[in-house]
Amino acid sequence: MEGKIVLPQFGSLEWGILFFVLASSIVALIYGIFLVRYVLRTNVDDKKMLEVSLAIEEGAMAYLRRQFNTMIWFIIALMVILFFVYKSVYTDIRLPLGISIAFLMGVFASYGAGFVGMWLSVKANVRTAYTALTKSFSDSLKISFRAGAVSGMFTLGFGLLGATIIFMAFREEAMKVLVGFGFGAALAALFMRVGGGIYTKAADVGADLVGKVEKGIPEDDPRNAATIADNVGDNVGDCAGMTADVFESYEVTLVAAIILAAATLLDPSFTQKYGQNSEMFALKLIMFPLILRAIGVFSSMIGIWSVRMKEEEQDPMRGITRGYILSAILSIIGFAIVIYLYLVDPITNAPDFRFLIPPSIGILLAVVTMWLTDYFTHPDKKPATEVSYSSKTGPATVILTGMGVGLESTVWAIVVIAGTIGGALLVFPESLSLAAYSIALTGLGLLTTTGYILAMDTYGPITDNAHGIFEMSGVKDQKASRVLDRMDAIGNTTKALTKGLAIATAVIAAISLFRSFIDEAELFLKGIQINLPDVFIGILIGGAVPFLFSSFAIKAVGRAAFLVVEEVRRQFREKPGIMEWKEKPDYGKTVDIVTAAAQKELIGPGILAIFSPILVGFLLGAQALGGFLAGAILTGQLLAVFMANAGGVWDNAKKKIEDGFLGGKGTDSHKAAVVGDTVGDPFKDTAGPSLNPLIKVINLVSLLIAPIVILELPVLLKLSIVIVSLVALTIAVALSKRGAITEENK
Amino acid sequence: MEGKIVLPQFGSLEWGILFFVLASSIVALIYGIFLVRYVLRTNVDDKKMLEVSLAIEEGAMAYLRRQFNTMIWFIIALMVILFFVYKSVYTDIRLPLGISIAFLMGVFASYGAGFVGMWLSVKANVRTAYTALTKSFSDSLKISFRAGAVSGMFTLGFGLLGATIIFMAFREEAMKVLVGFGFGAALAALFMRVGGGIYTKAADVGADLVGKVEKGIPEDDPRNAATIADNVGDNVGDCAGMTADVFESYEVTLVAAIILAAATLLDPSFTQKYGQNSEMFALKLIMFPLILRAIGVFSSMIGIWSVRMKEEEQDPMRGITRGYILSAILSIIGFAIVIYLYLVDPITNAPDFRFLIPPSIGILLAVVTMWLTDYFTHPDKKPATEVSYSSKTGPATVILTGMGVGLESTVWAIVVIAGTIGGALLVFPESLSLAAYSIALTGLGLLTTTGYILAMDTYGPITDNAHGIFEMSGVKDQKASRVLDRMDAIGNTTKALTKGLAIATAVIAAISLFRSFIDEAELFLKGIQINLPDVFIGILIGGAVPFLFSSFAIKAVGRAAFLVVEEVRRQFREKPGIMEWKEKPDYGKTVDIVTAAAQKELIGPGILAIFSPILVGFLLGAQALGGFLAGAILTGQLLAVFMANAGGVWDNAKKKIEDGFLGGKGTDSHKAAVVGDTVGDPFKDTAGPSLNPLIKVINLVSLLIAPIVILELPVLLKLSIVIVSLVALTIAVALSKRGAITEENK
Repeated sequence: MEGKIVLPQFGSLEWGILFFVLASSIVALIYGIFLVRYVLRTNVDDKKMLEVSLAIEEGAMAYLRRQFNTMIWFIIALMVILFFVYKSVYTDIRLPLGISIAFLMGVFASYGAGFVGMWLSVKANVRTAYTALTKSFSDSLKISFRAGAVSGMFTLGFGLLGATIIFMAFREEAMKVLVGFGFGAALAALFMRVGGGIYTKAADVGADLVGKVEKGIPEDDPRNAATIADNVGDNVGDCAGMTADVFESYEVTLVAAIILAAATLLDPSFTQKYGQNSEMFALKLIMFPLILRAIGVFSSMIGIWSVRMKEEEQDPMRGITRGYILSAILSIIGFAIVIYLYLVDPITNAPDFRFLIPPSIGILLAVVTMWLTDYFTHPDKKPATEVSYSSKTGPATVILTGMGVGLESTVWAIVVIAGTIGGALLVFPESLSLAAYSIALTGLGLLTTTGYILAMDTYGPITDNAHGIFEMSGVKDQKASRVLDRMDAIGNTTKALTKGLAIATAVIAAISLFRSFIDEAELFLKGIQINLPDVFIGILIGGAVPFLFSSFAIKAVGRAAFLVVEEVRRQFREKPGIMEWKEKPDYGKTVDIVTAAAQKELIGPGILAIFSPILVGFLLGAQALGGFLAGAILTGQLLAVFMANAGGVWDNAKKKIEDGFLGGKGTDSHKAAVVGDTVGDPFKDTAGPSLNPLIKVINLVSLLIAPIVILELPVLLKLSIVIVSLVALTIAVALSKRGAITEENK
Repeated sequence: MEGKIVLPQFGSLEWGILFFVLASSIVALIYGIFLVRYVLRTNVDDKKMLEVSLAIEEGAMAYLRRQFNTMIWFIIALMVILFFVYKSVYTDIRLPLGISIAFLMGVFASYGAGFVGMWLSVKANVRTAYTALTKSFSDSLKISFRAGAVSGMFTLGFGLLGATIIFMAFREEAMKVLVGFGFGAALAALFMRVGGGIYTKAADVGADLVGKVEKGIPEDDPRNAATIADNVGDNVGDCAGMTADVFESYEVTLVAAIILAAATLLDPSFTQKYGQNSEMFALKLIMFPLILRAIGVFSSMIGIWSVRMKEEEQDPMRGITRGYILSAILSIIGFAIVIYLYLVDPITNAPDFRFLIPPSIGILLAVVTMWLTDYFTHPDKKPATEVSYSSKTGPATVILTGMGVGLESTVWAIVVIAGTIGGALLVFPESLSLAAYSIALTGLGLLTTTGYILAMDTYGPITDNAHGIFEMSGVKDQKASRVLDRMDAIGNTTKALTKGLAIATAVIAAISLFRSFIDEAELFLKGIQINLPDVFIGILIGGAVPFLFSSFAIKAVGRAAFLVVEEVRRQFREKPGIMEWKEKPDYGKTVDIVTAAAQKELIGPGILAIFSPILVGFLLGAQALGGFLAGAILTGQLLAVFMANAGGVWDNAKKKIEDGFLGGKGTDSHKAAVVGDTVGDPFKDTAGPSLNPLIKVINLVSLLIAPIVILELPVLLKLSIVIVSLVALTIAVALSKRGAITEENK
């Protein structure tokens, strides 16, 4: 199956489909704008609430501005490097130009989707709170969920638009250009995830340590100088970071499927089977992924619009679940119709409904992944009950039981993914290329409902903030308080569910990229043989990278939180009036400090993600780099699931106790559970989620350098690349040890 | 390089060497017996001490007896299965017979080395305490260290004797038979590690939770019904388990090196280089590993005998370190002499000193690994200081900082191992087979000082027990108390250092086994290609197994500890006189309970280790099984180092505070550090160390089934094997959820 992939000529049907897909992407954007207007239509007439919300908005925007300003120079430098490196590799100038411009576009698209989503989130939070106060539970749910959906619709819109345009412009070379696009998107996602993750947890832990522990004031108390930063953090981490992350998976899976469809023409078992109709049928397979994506736009839209709460239920989760099921079922029905009308087997002249199986498996994977997350973290399920119960013997047993849960949960997550790949393989036993295409289709299926999934995710920080704003504004209204409390709890659940899903999408995307890497590094025939010692070394080092990365992230939160603690303490000390409500704390100062700290802490993880594959590639070669990728995907996935679920179950075990289990707040059990929750915070909100873009960035960097690694480079050039990488990595490690909290710097 | 390995005929020189090696193994055993007599020469004349020590001895022996009785039926069944399965594969009846008998021998040898070591340990502990009281610090050190050395000498003796006899009897088929031997040894090691690990931590945690936390009585207080069990546990886990574990690595690396030496004759680059002298030189390479092992016997003996403490130093660690350096240097000198006299290159007629490099790298790997462990866990180094310091902000930050340390430490451990493999590869650029041999020689180097290393390890539980016996006997003597306290602390250090080393030996042994697997599964030409989806699935599942295994182990400790808590509480309740020293608690009952619980908890992890490779092999085939092994080695190593070092640093951070840092005992900092220590206990003493035998058992099972997996079996037979494995694994998972601590069973 080695050989150059060439796309067949498009006929009028194909052009028609392409424009239909483009039109759907524009529909997604228009729907997004429509949702924005829907949310902004509500006017808030409560000064206190507006004041708090404005502070959050300012903080969030300041963070994004600063992030952009830090990032942009780095991005421009990388863009120039990409251009010149590829100019020396490819004769056709269109490719280096396309790759570097696509890279920039990727950064902007990913950043843009995150930006818009967050921009609306910080406007929607106060509207959600106000609606809960002045209108009904159901109206409040609508505002918050539809606002959340905006990130989803912009992701679909930008993602589909970008991918389709690049595909139309570059055809069979599209994958190369799209790697640039994806790299930009993933790098922006990495920065937003890591930066946002550090931001949100540093603010959270810092606020709690001084506020709750030292001063004994409740959460979200306006006297705490870190409360605004804490609320800003929820948006930065959960909304912007997540959107940018999923955006990139959405892109990559689409293009991988298209390229694999074209690759069927190189496969003798395919061309023998379909004979003279091969080219025609391959064209259909090429168009099929694009149509699937367009279907996803409409099914997500309908699902989102359907979400409402029946007044008799008083449980928004049911409406959200119904909406998800609706959009999943609509997607499958849509797939079936397309197959019936379009994917007609030229030999039998009947629609080949086997192609319905892989994307449906993908949707099933999404459902099962959410179900697993729910089982391992939900307060009412056995694991969370056990963790809560273990609080009776103190914090140590809480930690151990939670670890046990987290470790176990990784296994089922992996088994489900392995089952998905295996299931997809079995559908087309007659052709290796169709089997590969089938695996790619599961990725498409998994991400079909992206719009809906991101709505569920962003709903989390919006309701969390709405609750916070309500508390801080000091309004007393029992009904609204109950509504917002309930919505906040549901938001935590949806956030946790989508977190598990984001990991699955990242792994599936990474596997697609890994396959492209094999093509780019010309390893299809040679293979990546684990039995070779250098490949084995590659696997070992690749597997260690997520561990080092997690260690960086966890330490960074500790350092940044320490700065917050110092600042909040300073304000309490220098403005003694704060405690008696006579002075206002300086929220902006704390926001600035966390923002700066989060930016600084980005450098180490960023270097690690970019330079570790470069080092392995140029030191040990392409095959070892392949081993490196496999190792990194493996442990990245395991650690991500472990951290997400251990963090989730600790969080919910604490909530379960706060809801009255084992005596509730104030008991020793509660104190023990709080320890678990605090440990879990940087797990589930910093290190864990950052592992998704990490494994994607590592794969993309490898893809980008693959054509260069396999060249016969001068030894001196190779050596200097290796040395530069080593120096960069040494700096990253040194940074991770900087300013650690020891008695010396105290 | 495919082909059948045939050993050249041995001449009188080779027979001479073989008998010299056999003689060295007997010298090791005689030296072991001599050390036993040395230790037993000291008569203890203190009734109280003897009484306590006898209780520990009885408990420890009861545990080993019960372990043996549980294990033996399982072992016999496996032996029969092995015989009949191999009878259907090999025509020559000698092989199935040899493999199944070797399996039984392996169990007995591994169990025997552990048994003898522990039998002496529980006699040496009281003598160490008594000597500290009646004689000098230095005498007390000699007794405890030499007693520890007995496990080391018996491991060398049994190991070398067994391997040499099997090699002489089975020649080129020796690897197959030795897999049986290794499997027996590893399985016994897995049972001793897991069972012992659960035992020791259940007793420890259980004793602490009721004694220290609920009743406020100190550690090792005779009123606590679990104190004896706690002391028994130290022996069972650290002494018997560790010895059995290292025993197996010692075997496997030796035979792998011999086989790889013989394989050079299949390599054209080797036979071209050495021409007609190829066979003669290959014979030398075959004998070389055996001679290295013999050198290790003598260098370990001299090193052990040299250990003493200069009275002016008052620091036993220096003597122990000097002894280690002495034995390492003697080994390298010995290697050099052998190369000078024996490994003469037939072409240049000069000794080929390049062969000195790989075993020296191995010794260096041991030194660097111990140095890394020391850096990441020693109370005076930066990581432990940071963890201690983080106790100021409570238990959550202690956990997080320790996690950060543990996660980071994995990376350096992996880099060092990767560097070792890479370094060994570079020594012989001219021949692939010599490069492979070179990697095997590093493993030999790493395990050269096994005798000394096990002495250091077993010294730990002996001094720990000696300290405990002294406390429990109620003798008041300031000098002796100080001596034993100091020795106990050093024992903790040596235990921690050797723990890191045991992981490195397990990984190197697993890599050797992996290489043999490739031969057995006839994958040398085909390779194990990560780019194939089924291999990738194999990697994913293999990587998940150590996570599931750790989760099993951690949960098991929780369950067993719960039983101990219940029992100790019951005794306090039903015998109210205990607290006023009027009644004696029933130590035996607690010992029985932990023993039974530890045995029961073995089943799940045992099933997982044996059936997961069987499932993958028969469901997905030999290549996928290769991927499975690579995944398991990778995450097994990462998790083992993570758990060992996180556990170690928490332990030492607590000790640092107890020694007066940040205010010492009784402060909030101390309480926070105790939480870290308790979390770390099952990490570093149960789950972490059990991962070593796990990865070896998994590799050995794969090796054993490889010749069957590659056969064209009837589908129905394959299906039934798959179903049986699935059922077994389901039972294992169900067992791990049994009797969990929820409100229902309370």
